[in-house]
Amino acid sequence: MERIDGHTILIGLMATPIRHSMSPTMHNNAFAKLGLNYAYLAFEVGNDQLADAVQAIRTLDMRGSNVSMPNKQKILPLLDKLSPAAKMAGAVNTVVNDNGVLTGYTTDGTGFMKSLADEGLDIRGKKMVLTGAGGAGTPIAIQAALDGVKEIAIFNRQDAQWKQAEKNVEMINAQTKCHASLHHLEDRADFKHELAIADIYCDSTGVGMKPLEDMTLVEDPTWFHEDMIVFDTVYAPRETKLMKVAKEAGVKHVLNGLGMMLEQGAEAFKLWTGKEMPVEYIHQLLFNEE
Amino acid sequence: MERIDGHTILIGLMATPIRHSMSPTMHNNAFAKLGLNYAYLAFEVGNDQLADAVQAIRTLDMRGSNVSMPNKQKILPLLDKLSPAAKMAGAVNTVVNDNGVLTGYTTDGTGFMKSLADEGLDIRGKKMVLTGAGGAGTPIAIQAALDGVKEIAIFNRQDAQWKQAEKNVEMINAQTKCHASLHHLEDRADFKHELAIADIYCDSTGVGMKPLEDMTLVEDPTWFHEDMIVFDTVYAPRETKLMKVAKEAGVKHVLNGLGMMLEQGAEAFKLWTGKEMPVEYIHQLLFNEE
Repeated sequence: MERIDGHTILIGLMATPIRHSMSPTMHNNAFAKLGLNYAYLAFEVGNDQLADAVQAIRTLDMRGSNVSMPNKQKILPLLDKLSPAAKMAGAVNTVVNDNGVLTGYTTDGTGFMKSLADEGLDIRGKKMVLTGAGGAGTPIAIQAALDGVKEIAIFNRQDAQWKQAEKNVEMINAQTKCHASLHHLEDRADFKHELAIADIYCDSTGVGMKPLEDMTLVEDPTWFHEDMIVFDTVYAPRETKLMKVAKEAGVKHVLNGLGMMLEQGAEAFKLWTGKEMPVEYIHQLLFNEE
Repeated sequence: MERIDGHTILIGLMATPIRHSMSPTMHNNAFAKLGLNYAYLAFEVGNDQLADAVQAIRTLDMRGSNVSMPNKQKILPLLDKLSPAAKMAGAVNTVVNDNGVLTGYTTDGTGFMKSLADEGLDIRGKKMVLTGAGGAGTPIAIQAALDGVKEIAIFNRQDAQWKQAEKNVEMINAQTKCHASLHHLEDRADFKHELAIADIYCDSTGVGMKPLEDMTLVEDPTWFHEDMIVFDTVYAPRETKLMKVAKEAGVKHVLNGLGMMLEQGAEAFKLWTGKEMPVEYIHQLLFNEE
């Protein structure tokens, strides 16, 4: 017997393009496993449909929604409340509907930190080099700073995201005890130097993701050192070019974005249902990996 | 593995109260059985939320929706097109979204006729007595007239539905070859007389449904005759007081509304998916009956 009945509550995912997302499979299997009466569906929603889509959360009494590109920032003025991290990041990936009051959260940053903790890694008090200041990089920087990372060197090109990178640095320095600095990605000597004294390098740019799987921002293994962490937010492919270079350098802790993807989902799952997502079960079921 | 993924298309049911409806269970099991990637969810929608709910069909690119009380008539001006039967009945129970063009259909009447056909019963050219002119009675009268029933005597109290009953009679006489007449339900002698010369009596009022399961509009078995059909649109309980009286009278064909409920759903299912609902499978699965 199918588990959806008249009492099932809808949760959405509003983004475009979105039909290939793993999130619906992840959440629906977790709901089924725990016997929770929700259904999670993806909807193709761009900036033009966003206001109507947020109204639909209210009208259909949905429990909430995930939000992804290109709506993570545009959704802010459509919501009633924001979590402190969402406010700082200026981005939302999770909406919770409490009896008509919509609150925006960002679980990408907590997902990043949690995925490190899952591996027994603790970067509090440490120094991070971060490339990118977009939809993933911004919440990662904010959450790392909030959680006690000591220093963050953000590298970016002077492209459309440069302004956001400047904002992130300013915000972190003004509102947290972390020291953030902004660097030009084109300054290779500076980049190499910062990596040499970093405890963790995180690439949030998406470089290395299909169809750019032959690219990496660090091509020379000698820029890395063994006792650091190299974290790529990409998880398709599972091993990016960056990760191969890091492994060649003998780096012990080389991680892809799969754990972060699962943990950001688990965090949203908990906000909607109050329950812990069975992350290990979902990991095995969806990815058939250890 | 749960069948809902990023490609799943939403279909709704918009009414209130609606959480106890069997329709989500019916449609989702049929989708699963045929491997169709849809999910059918119920939403509490009253008249005040209806315009926003219809907008949600467009914004979320839903394939469509069922509509029930109190929205069956209120939805008409919100749609782009109406089927001929929906236009005549002034009521819609099914909305189909073809790339942003919303068409309203009524499948209650065809569901009624199909459920008779499923039992090998053909009322074309025959005389029907019908009580009620509401959300079920109106499409039943219209479809029966369109399909070739020769005569329909509609009985109603002079309540809020009397105007609709007048409209139905007028419409049928103007636009079909069927002859319709309107009668006062309080005129017991007239009611008894018409039943005596009827081939089928259909009660669409909902009298006999929980919590009114001890009531019936016909209490005297002698008002019925063996070779007629007695049809109650109620299906909870499965055997209503009216059906008991009919069986006491020796009436051969005594039917509840279960077949009609399944067939109206099958008709909507076909409008959305282009496929035949596996009605027998669903009947067995949901109701565990022969």
